[in-house]
Amino acid sequence: MNVAIVGLGVVGGSLALGLKGNPDYTVYGIDIDAGTLKSAMDMGMICGGSRESQEILPLADVTVLCLYPDVVSRYVEQNAALFKPGSFIMDVTGVKERTVAQVKKVLPPEIDFVFAHPMAGRENRGIAFASGEVLKGANFLLTPVPSNKPENLDLARKLAKDCGFGRITEVTPHEHDRNIAFTSQLSHVIAISLINSDTEEYDTSSFVGDSYRGITRIASINQDLWTQLFFGNKENLLEVIDNFQKQVALMREYIADENEKGLRQLFIKAARRREKLK
Amino acid sequence: MNVAIVGLGVVGGSLALGLKGNPDYTVYGIDIDAGTLKSAMDMGMICGGSRESQEILPLADVTVLCLYPDVVSRYVEQNAALFKPGSFIMDVTGVKERTVAQVKKVLPPEIDFVFAHPMAGRENRGIAFASGEVLKGANFLLTPVPSNKPENLDLARKLAKDCGFGRITEVTPHEHDRNIAFTSQLSHVIAISLINSDTEEYDTSSFVGDSYRGITRIASINQDLWTQLFFGNKENLLEVIDNFQKQVALMREYIADENEKGLRQLFIKAARRREKLK
Repeated sequence: MNVAIVGLGVVGGSLALGLKGNPDYTVYGIDIDAGTLKSAMDMGMICGGSRESQEILPLADVTVLCLYPDVVSRYVEQNAALFKPGSFIMDVTGVKERTVAQVKKVLPPEIDFVFAHPMAGRENRGIAFASGEVLKGANFLLTPVPSNKPENLDLARKLAKDCGFGRITEVTPHEHDRNIAFTSQLSHVIAISLINSDTEEYDTSSFVGDSYRGITRIASINQDLWTQLFFGNKENLLEVIDNFQKQVALMREYIADENEKGLRQLFIKAARRREKLK
Repeated sequence: MNVAIVGLGVVGGSLALGLKGNPDYTVYGIDIDAGTLKSAMDMGMICGGSRESQEILPLADVTVLCLYPDVVSRYVEQNAALFKPGSFIMDVTGVKERTVAQVKKVLPPEIDFVFAHPMAGRENRGIAFASGEVLKGANFLLTPVPSNKPENLDLARKLAKDCGFGRITEVTPHEHDRNIAFTSQLSHVIAISLINSDTEEYDTSSFVGDSYRGITRIASINQDLWTQLFFGNKENLLEVIDNFQKQVALMREYIADENEKGLRQLFIKAARRREKLK
């Protein structure tokens, strides 16, 4: 199966590494940056690559768009005539309802589009940070739409498994966006808000333990990507921020009142939930 | 030098492991639990131990109290006559102003007390989770008081270095508590509030990536210990919670308004600060 990966950044590069050496796949790369293509060739991620989509897309049985959310539908529109008839496209974006709606308007009828979200981001960007290892056992979300052919969904699942992903979950685009607002986007809002709330009265680095380091690890994010992700899932994100703020306010109240019983209940609830997550 | 470690839980056990095999130290253990003492002997952490403080304390040049914050001064008071004259005591508690004030009232004049906070906690409790590895390169805070003898502060520093700690920082008890409220306690408030704000409408575990796992890693905490830590540093903790909530509210506003410029400024500030932390 010929796979074209469009955008060899940290996500596209990691997927390419995940498939590297697997005889079921012949992987090609498309990227606007010649240096990135050269790196991908040198690292054996791809067997061929080009800056020109028309050189690669007509060969591809699967085209994986590893592009920023706002660019996905535009890329499909601009290259509509180049996709191989009967092939399918996948994306990797972290917002789904908006992407599905945008793609629907421009997708050629003979091409299928399987919407996917491999949950294996990194805090760094670019091909240099690509890693097949981060995919191992990670969650992979599929958001099927009525127009999807079952065999293409099967191929997408196989591709995810072959890359090393663990649990593959199918959800509606709506469920996806609600959940991702909570598990991914809210975590980033928290990390950034925590580090930005440092009064810098002291040299914080002398006082940090693993807890602060762990929470703020994701505070350094790709601005372009995350602005699009946050705005593209605004309503859900605002709702989970509000839920979170209420919990912080409740805990603040119990601490202010030295309400030991209330505080212990919050501790117990959190511990029980964290256990389930393991 | 004879070292008595009082309380062979995860912290006391880790310190004992940090000193294991070092010919400069002969380490004894005191614990209320016979099984814990046996484990410590079996693991070679201590060369002798007892449930009875009077059997060990008179031998000790340094007594390290690895006890809950609220118990520290009581232990000193109850065992005041047993400490070796000229020896010194250390603690490991995460709140300092209150501990210093409480100990001051009960400390025998011939005994010195060096207040310390090794920043190498674990999310689990008990000797089974003790690890010398977690000490390696970790921050160690010393909060000297005017009554401390310089040679005892030197010995405390040497002990920390020998255990493997990295940066050793001296601060006042007040500075300690202000900083710890931010770098440690607030992180725990956040982790617990995040996991407790889950509406549980879906099976969250299918949707989590490293970010959510990383933040909530510390959500399962020792209730007894953390109730004492939070209430023992209440004013500072409430202040940093308020600062944090303001930052979350600001970010929420920028997302609601799709204020791209404002959001990017928050991203840039956070990324710059995270870089400095490495």
